[in-house]
Amino acid sequence: MKDQLLYEGKAKQVFTVKGDDNLLVLSYKNDATAFNGVKKANFKGKGRYNNLISAKVFDYLAANGVASHFKEALNDTEQLVEKTTIIPLEVVVRNVAAGSITKRIGLEEKTPFQPALVEFFYKEDALGDPLINDEHALFLTDCTQADLEEIKKMARLVNQKLQAFFKEINLQLVDFKLEFGRNKNDEIILSDEVSPDTCRLWDLSTGEKMDKDVFREDLGDLVTVYDHILSRLEAKS
Amino acid sequence: MKDQLLYEGKAKQVFTVKGDDNLLVLSYKNDATAFNGVKKANFKGKGRYNNLISAKVFDYLAANGVASHFKEALNDTEQLVEKTTIIPLEVVVRNVAAGSITKRIGLEEKTPFQPALVEFFYKEDALGDPLINDEHALFLTDCTQADLEEIKKMARLVNQKLQAFFKEINLQLVDFKLEFGRNKNDEIILSDEVSPDTCRLWDLSTGEKMDKDVFREDLGDLVTVYDHILSRLEAKS
Repeated sequence: MKDQLLYEGKAKQVFTVKGDDNLLVLSYKNDATAFNGVKKANFKGKGRYNNLISAKVFDYLAANGVASHFKEALNDTEQLVEKTTIIPLEVVVRNVAAGSITKRIGLEEKTPFQPALVEFFYKEDALGDPLINDEHALFLTDCTQADLEEIKKMARLVNQKLQAFFKEINLQLVDFKLEFGRNKNDEIILSDEVSPDTCRLWDLSTGEKMDKDVFREDLGDLVTVYDHILSRLEAKS
Repeated sequence: MKDQLLYEGKAKQVFTVKGDDNLLVLSYKNDATAFNGVKKANFKGKGRYNNLISAKVFDYLAANGVASHFKEALNDTEQLVEKTTIIPLEVVVRNVAAGSITKRIGLEEKTPFQPALVEFFYKEDALGDPLINDEHALFLTDCTQADLEEIKKMARLVNQKLQAFFKEINLQLVDFKLEFGRNKNDEIILSDEVSPDTCRLWDLSTGEKMDKDVFREDLGDLVTVYDHILSRLEAKS
């Protein structure tokens, strides 16, 4: 099904699809990177977990009114998606303070945000993906203010839906990063992936970190943790 | 007139006023600091220039519909102001890219912004005054969204008025930093100072930098440059 390699990112390869310009194949790699690529490792099996967990998340969101680029998982490490032009914004939603924001604005980890905070980061590795405000986003992207409001609204809806989704498997959704793209009809839809690489997930009973922070902070074996998440999701469905 | 030292900042001292709780005296120091206090120096006469230039700016703004805390210059280095509780936001307006934004989002110096960009930085030295977005400002300050919109509107109005003000003395207003405070009636008004310490000003004919960048970038004698600005303002009025 997949044809030419179109782009290789830190965690995924993107392929064209033979005979359909409107589709892409995402192939999940076993690589993990953190701190803007400064820390790197390869974990056998990681690509499979991100692919299968992300597929379950996108299926759940579709069933709950959130359109995304996701079509179907093709095999253990690949998924078929609608082609979009990615908007160069990393859209972060935070329910609880963790990671970069604690140092940036001086908060204790676990400080709750009510309502959740939405942040835009300019997706540009060479600059370290800097935090920006709406006015920068208008200057740096082709988004209008209405587009930015729509993206924030979708991000908040995803947050509401995924808090419930993860709560069912005894995980607290601490924060997560989304990317959005425009499809051929110029609609803005959820793109990229939603996985333990892009979400912070804490066990509701033990407080244990069950996401890429295990790698960032050397807390244990990443693949074991991702396997727990997939197992809980499979037991639920 | 001045009574007790209430607070000493990097560039000014703030005194209470005997017999009037609603007034303060600002005393401009000769100290210059840059890069969040990492670079420091003392320039004989600098306090006088900032005081007298700031007084002229506030008078002009008052005559053009922008209320501020400024009452009057008392002498060469001191001014009488209305007491406000400062909102911990540094409000930056940018007409042209210069300084931190060029590195932060990867722009050439002199890239124009049309419309001007408004940025909020959280006024907290210990954190290096980080850039924040509106949602952070709502979390970190007592401002409502309506307050933030009012602050942005006032900042844009100040920009419009000061672009004309400085153009009359052949200077381009590149960017500037404002602070706002609440007075006893809980009105948000322009506070702090507006001077070559807080504005970037480029000579319209030569492009020469005529502001604190002379100190930041070791371009020449700061006091000579500030003297040029005051002389041009005095020649105009």
